Amino acid sequence: MSTQLNDNSDNASAREQLLEAACQIMRDGDTVDLSLSELSLRSGLNSALVKYYFGNKDGLMQALLERDMTNVVNALQALVAKDMPPEEKLRLHIGAVIDTYFSFPYLNRLLMRMIRDSAPAEAKRIAELYLKPISDAYSSLIADGVDAGKFRNVDPQLFYFTVTGAADRFFNARQVLKHCYDQHEVSEALRDNYREHTVDIIMRGLLA
Amino acid sequence: MSTQLNDNSDNASAREQLLEAACQIMRDGDTVDLSLSELSLRSGLNSALVKYYFGNKDGLMQALLERDMTNVVNALQALVAKDMPPEEKLRLHIGAVIDTYFSFPYLNRLLMRMIRDSAPAEAKRIAELYLKPISDAYSSLIADGVDAGKFRNVDPQLFYFTVTGAADRFFNARQVLKHCYDQHEVSEALRDNYREHTVDIIMRGLLA
Repeated sequence: MSTQLNDNSDNASAREQLLEAACQIMRDGDTVDLSLSELSLRSGLNSALVKYYFGNKDGLMQALLERDMTNVVNALQALVAKDMPPEEKLRLHIGAVIDTYFSFPYLNRLLMRMIRDSAPAEAKRIAELYLKPISDAYSSLIADGVDAGKFRNVDPQLFYFTVTGAADRFFNARQVLKHCYDQHEVSEALRDNYREHTVDIIMRGLLA
Repeated sequence: MSTQLNDNSDNASAREQLLEAACQIMRDGDTVDLSLSELSLRSGLNSALVKYYFGNKDGLMQALLERDMTNVVNALQALVAKDMPPEEKLRLHIGAVIDTYFSFPYLNRLLMRMIRDSAPAEAKRIAELYLKPISDAYSSLIADGVDAGKFRNVDPQLFYFTVTGAADRFFNARQVLKHCYDQHEVSEALRDNYREHTVDIIMRGLLA
């Protein structure tokens, strides 16, 4: 270990800078591919630090997944535990998923890429950390709504696909907007309109 | 040009074999990355034929996009032109999108990849061939339904995002099914259930 890196706040900051640079590369490039040279350029840090903090590029991608997904899982579990009508919980959740994908458009691709490319035991670990808790939360949310007579009895597994798919629309969205709608950015106003539109469609589609 | 390749039916067949091999690699691997050696292995054909028929790998990906997307665009335009209630058209269309992505789970990723990685003029051409006509069809379908008093007045652009997102769920689906639901294939039964589920959610969400 290098003695130049002993100050904890600097450590934290360089580590976070690398993660944030990876995040920006993926977000701006509509990609989940990273090159060490681009990381170095974007972060202003020597790419040897990737090895130092994360072991290798895969380790960095795993740390980025952890940075972004842990909040998602925790927030959903906290929401499920709340004392609140199921339809209100679900409205909040669908809106939150859209906000998450707006901020981290690569997130679902990165998660799937890590699962696809990892050895089986590691793939299982990632799925259990980030996929299974979400899937369980959907089962619980839908069951509560059905019990309360509010939701149609939809398959929570299929409903999870629906919500993820509808929300995960910001990766590559620039391409569609530019070439079909002559719009040149994925603005916060578009996000807000799309949040309202999607919550509306899905909730009307689900309500009994 | 090689004289060994003059027989037209063989030409067609070798060309189609290469496209089908590319399709299978993308479908089975949840990827839109191709290697010439894998193409050669999968098709049983010399990878020099890629150069012969398509110029290069990009040319082959473009031909695959054309093979799969042309039918999609034509079918949608034919549907829009039909004398049929708008809600019935849209039901049929949403079902068809799901069937398309089940058969070609890579299709949306391939389209976006080609647009992202092409020079601006070529990106525009691809968007005008495959994105714009679909976007126009949505505007027309939604306007007809609103005029008929059947649909809520949703933004057709946002609605296009909703449908594509909900339907484009088969890429990587194996990973989720295996690790969350202990299912080991994306079966036709799952496709049929998901088609019904999605048509139901979206149509209920749209109807006035």
